[in-house]
Amino acid sequence: MQLYSFFNSSTSWRVRIALALKGLEYQHHGINLRHGEQRSTAYLALNASPSVPLLIDDEGQGIGQSLAIIDYLDNRYPQPQLIPLEGLARARVLEVANLVGCDIHPLNNLRVLGYLQKELLLSDQQKDSWYQHWVEEGIQALETLLERHGYGRYCFGDEPGLADCCLVPQVANALRMGCNLQRFERTLAIYQVCQAHPAFIQASPRHQPDFIA
Amino acid sequence: MQLYSFFNSSTSWRVRIALALKGLEYQHHGINLRHGEQRSTAYLALNASPSVPLLIDDEGQGIGQSLAIIDYLDNRYPQPQLIPLEGLARARVLEVANLVGCDIHPLNNLRVLGYLQKELLLSDQQKDSWYQHWVEEGIQALETLLERHGYGRYCFGDEPGLADCCLVPQVANALRMGCNLQRFERTLAIYQVCQAHPAFIQASPRHQPDFIA
Repeated sequence: MQLYSFFNSSTSWRVRIALALKGLEYQHHGINLRHGEQRSTAYLALNASPSVPLLIDDEGQGIGQSLAIIDYLDNRYPQPQLIPLEGLARARVLEVANLVGCDIHPLNNLRVLGYLQKELLLSDQQKDSWYQHWVEEGIQALETLLERHGYGRYCFGDEPGLADCCLVPQVANALRMGCNLQRFERTLAIYQVCQAHPAFIQASPRHQPDFIA
Repeated sequence: MQLYSFFNSSTSWRVRIALALKGLEYQHHGINLRHGEQRSTAYLALNASPSVPLLIDDEGQGIGQSLAIIDYLDNRYPQPQLIPLEGLARARVLEVANLVGCDIHPLNNLRVLGYLQKELLLSDQQKDSWYQHWVEEGIQALETLLERHGYGRYCFGDEPGLADCCLVPQVANALRMGCNLQRFERTLAIYQVCQAHPAFIQASPRHQPDFIA
């Protein structure tokens, strides 16, 4: 398999965690979003969308969208299972994954922050307020979901799954951007537990070939 | 079952299409996003997130996030199947659903447009440019995905599925906001086919109990 990834991209990071949890080997291709490499003709021939991640499977088929990729991997390489197979347990995991994937991350990624600065000419303070507004509203909902339905050391149980693949990059980016998350105790506790897990360490930005300090 | 929905919400609309395609009956609760009803204490006791839709299943369990809800319904009531069960066919459907759900819709919903106007004091022209920018970039990617991998009268085949549940509300809202989508021929053709399908008609905003002209 091959993965097109940017070290600091949350969505790439989710997929890297899933691959690491499953112990799957892959060839890494760095796509530097800061330099616009996702808009090159060569890359858009592989991915319909100017975004990362993109997985190329062993048959050469390209799949975009992090949650679609992890679902595909989970069906094809089910050990360990990252998404419960059915019922309410499955719905709870997907609810958390989609809360992060649809309600939090899309408002705070590089392309949106770039638009706020370059097209709307917002000040750094306005941009930071934007970031914090959506992150804090979203992580409040995440914390409530985990309080109501979560259990165990990770989001749902004592082994990491899809919800944790989504939580970690989002929390890491929020902390990097200076958000105060102290009141989200359960979210932060899970984040800390994940920080000590070898697969999460392996998938982290600083351990990627394209990492820039 | 019960569904908390706002007639004009794309994410509510997706779930309404899925319910209609499966012929499932449910009790409808209107949540007026324009009046902030999603932030009431009573509603937040049911849904961790100040958003619609929320499904309450027959056991009284509440599930948020439209894509998690449709996945749950598709497992529990598999006729007709809206998401292929495995392999690349499944990945292609989820790729389209997540493209709409993560890359297009979150930037253009009511809460975001409200923030642009009320917090950032953008002009109508700036707000419209924001809307069109993300919609056109996103629907370009959608069109490319459908050109590369789609087939049949709907997104993937001759029966509607999850990808169509996501495409229709997004295209409808883009047209309502004045976006010129003429160059996205395949996307528009699928939209038109769906417009004639009884389940899509039943789920449309103007046929909801909370519709406001």
